[in-house]
Amino acid sequence: MRNAAGRDVPQNPYMGAFAKQAYRTYTCDKERDATVVFGLKDAVAALGLRDGMTLSFHHHLRAGDRVLEQVMDAVRETRVKGLTIAASAIFPAHRVLVDRIADKTVRAIETAYISGPVAEAVSRGLLDGGIRMVTHGGRARAILEGDCPIDVAFIAAPAVDRAGRISGVLGRTPCGPLGYAAADAWKADIVVAVTDDLRDDEISDADIEAGTVDIICVVDKIGEAAGIVSGTTRITRDPVGLRIAADAAALLEKSGLFRNGLSFQTGAGGISLAVARFIQEKMKSTNIVGSFGSGGITEAFTDMLHEGLLGELFDVQAFDLAAVKSSREDPMHHRISASRYANPNDPEAIVSRLDAVVLGASEIDLDFNVNVTTGSDGMLLGGSGGHADTAAGAKLTMIVSKLVNARVSCLQERVTTVTTPGETVDVLVTDRGIAVNPRRPELLARLLADTHLDIVEIGTLYERAVRLTGKPAAASPSGREIGVSVYRDGTIIDVLKAVR
Amino acid sequence: MRNAAGRDVPQNPYMGAFAKQAYRTYTCDKERDATVVFGLKDAVAALGLRDGMTLSFHHHLRAGDRVLEQVMDAVRETRVKGLTIAASAIFPAHRVLVDRIADKTVRAIETAYISGPVAEAVSRGLLDGGIRMVTHGGRARAILEGDCPIDVAFIAAPAVDRAGRISGVLGRTPCGPLGYAAADAWKADIVVAVTDDLRDDEISDADIEAGTVDIICVVDKIGEAAGIVSGTTRITRDPVGLRIAADAAALLEKSGLFRNGLSFQTGAGGISLAVARFIQEKMKSTNIVGSFGSGGITEAFTDMLHEGLLGELFDVQAFDLAAVKSSREDPMHHRISASRYANPNDPEAIVSRLDAVVLGASEIDLDFNVNVTTGSDGMLLGGSGGHADTAAGAKLTMIVSKLVNARVSCLQERVTTVTTPGETVDVLVTDRGIAVNPRRPELLARLLADTHLDIVEIGTLYERAVRLTGKPAAASPSGREIGVSVYRDGTIIDVLKAVR
Repeated sequence: MRNAAGRDVPQNPYMGAFAKQAYRTYTCDKERDATVVFGLKDAVAALGLRDGMTLSFHHHLRAGDRVLEQVMDAVRETRVKGLTIAASAIFPAHRVLVDRIADKTVRAIETAYISGPVAEAVSRGLLDGGIRMVTHGGRARAILEGDCPIDVAFIAAPAVDRAGRISGVLGRTPCGPLGYAAADAWKADIVVAVTDDLRDDEISDADIEAGTVDIICVVDKIGEAAGIVSGTTRITRDPVGLRIAADAAALLEKSGLFRNGLSFQTGAGGISLAVARFIQEKMKSTNIVGSFGSGGITEAFTDMLHEGLLGELFDVQAFDLAAVKSSREDPMHHRISASRYANPNDPEAIVSRLDAVVLGASEIDLDFNVNVTTGSDGMLLGGSGGHADTAAGAKLTMIVSKLVNARVSCLQERVTTVTTPGETVDVLVTDRGIAVNPRRPELLARLLADTHLDIVEIGTLYERAVRLTGKPAAASPSGREIGVSVYRDGTIIDVLKAVR
Repeated sequence: MRNAAGRDVPQNPYMGAFAKQAYRTYTCDKERDATVVFGLKDAVAALGLRDGMTLSFHHHLRAGDRVLEQVMDAVRETRVKGLTIAASAIFPAHRVLVDRIADKTVRAIETAYISGPVAEAVSRGLLDGGIRMVTHGGRARAILEGDCPIDVAFIAAPAVDRAGRISGVLGRTPCGPLGYAAADAWKADIVVAVTDDLRDDEISDADIEAGTVDIICVVDKIGEAAGIVSGTTRITRDPVGLRIAADAAALLEKSGLFRNGLSFQTGAGGISLAVARFIQEKMKSTNIVGSFGSGGITEAFTDMLHEGLLGELFDVQAFDLAAVKSSREDPMHHRISASRYANPNDPEAIVSRLDAVVLGASEIDLDFNVNVTTGSDGMLLGGSGGHADTAAGAKLTMIVSKLVNARVSCLQERVTTVTTPGETVDVLVTDRGIAVNPRRPELLARLLADTHLDIVEIGTLYERAVRLTGKPAAASPSGREIGVSVYRDGTIIDVLKAVR
């Protein structure tokens, strides 16, 4: 047969240089300077928005973000309808979306995390086109692979130069890496950098390189730096939580992974952060030196970097101002894209190199499936973020949680919503016992032989919870379908139902 | 329908956490220390080699490599037959393979580059199972995606610690990064680190991390450091070559890509290296600061890094000792894997970020197809290495060559063997004129408007060559098929025929 180079070959013919290439991320280079526009009203008016377009946003400014709101105010004036909002996360600061859902400006949402009034509105079924709850790595994969085409990306840009290079660590509202905005910048049809710091001098060490931005929109203020530290990123002071954290650290120490070269990540929940501090102490006292920490980075991890306990940090988002500072100043504190962090199809994704990850759970079930997306009534109250990504990548995935909190057990026969499949979860550490996934018999044997931890079967732990709470009514929201929980590979792992 | 998490979903069901994941590179962690064996005879005897297995090697020691030969001597004693040798490149130093092909120990070869006596033997049709000529990025892709399963990887290791961490920049024979060995280390069933420097102290900043090596084989000597500098890596002193290089640099300057943030790579040929020096001068005189250089790294690029003309180097292999030193000492000189460098399915492959690449050619044709694999008689005399990878990735791919050399024109109606498809080649720069691929009309217009370069149609350049050499006989080797030229995506771009 004749191939695309005009040669006769026996089989498997060449089809053209890019016919079989999964990614061409950098083809969006526009070989021209960005246009500077003052004010979002003019910028949005210039876009030629049409009904049904997809607009994207990132959440690095977290509770301090003022860009999404300003954009949606300007969008409202264009009277377009039926938009999809592809935001990496949606916080209470984005309550403007409730009104834009109500007036049909917004029809659908795709995000990795949602909380606050928008989550409540969506949970009540007010979003006509439904919600897709994705993961941080899955969102980058989907955008880069063309599963989530973006018409306009609005990038909150702490500093921009005239060639469109964006820095997340400079400016009046530095937020650290811009990892969740990278895929958007590379792939969106139109990229708008929204900034309150446009610089004539060139930005070196940019987070978003030149050649991606079409429009630089100068506004008075993109946000409040202090808002970057939101409620989920404070270490627990609760003695019960600290006890759980100490047990999780002790378990890691005996897991076979606590050795020179250790790599680990903790979520931003209070107990997870305490685990990081306990691991830090153990590393110091045993002279263990780790290779890297990753994820949303907190001061616990920058301390370990600066103490020489970790060789590198791979940082997709800063969770506090110490992390912002370190990501600007320390050459071993690497600012990475969400794709590099957690794209399941990246051959060297950071999460695939993790030894251990410590994560929270709203619910976990007898199959070790975890729900961090909804409450038991179906109310949206979070989402995977990197939960499902790191659980799949790490050799040891530990869920830390109080077994019973306010008379409700986190351990259910069956989680309301599957965020992270039990196949990727290894251990549940609670204040009333520790359960090892039966898929990990070698880990169970090691822990039974070498620790005094209270290790029990998950069924036993479930019975302990039932004794405290009584048998919970089978929770299964039965409202109409309002969206789906999407696994990192793009498949549907669960459906989401309306709260009634 | 019910998905693998036991949930009823409307479509696109979740199939299991890893069912659709293209890569799981780091699952080979062996959670145990490597076994130390003294001498290759004992190490190879312990492997339980069987007929038909695939053994892999890397070529970072280049002409100085003594590992492949020692391994093949030990393998011969096991009397196994029909092996496939998956070596990242094969040099004259590997002539032992000629005898192992003759005695049927070796049946097939998969490599990105081959020269010397082994190339000659293969070209004469002595290899029963044939040769697959791949690219550097395609080789990493194939190994990581399971297209090229490796039974045993032998990794020439300049220094190893007892946990199996390998460094390419320490030891008695430092060779720089070990980028071509990374995929082998991650995916081979058995990984043997062959070293003359086994250390009790832990290696920090390793090229191959802990958890991949099964056997550490201590030998007297892995190679000669001086052999790393081979003949292809010296800058030209020929005035004609320098003139071509100056024109190529002038063309880049007017291409629209010569601006702050410029990224580029040059091959290791003498003219390409001269282009690097001319670009360096132009950057200095115009105060342009580039973002990165990549590829096989030479002193030209380490000089630019240290002068602040380039912000970073992404280095998959050191071409000279200055590059080895810089890759050890400079934190902005990054040692990367061949996958990160050039895997077409890596979403952030370095080659996809290149502005410009300067490459050589044995032949180029009227469709801009390039042959760097064979002579016009079909004799193997090289291979893609990163040629086809960088050509596909870079925005501007320039081929530099004398038009006529020793009465033979590099410009043919049709290349003997397609290594790099013309679709990915933008410009041919020769001493007798410059041709721009008609696929790039905007580049042609820009150069015609803004330069005094001698730009002609490729057909005109062909006629100029014919006037000098006469019309060459249509070169088409007609021997039996001895193998295939494989494009980076795994498809067959051409067949290779025996020299008669």
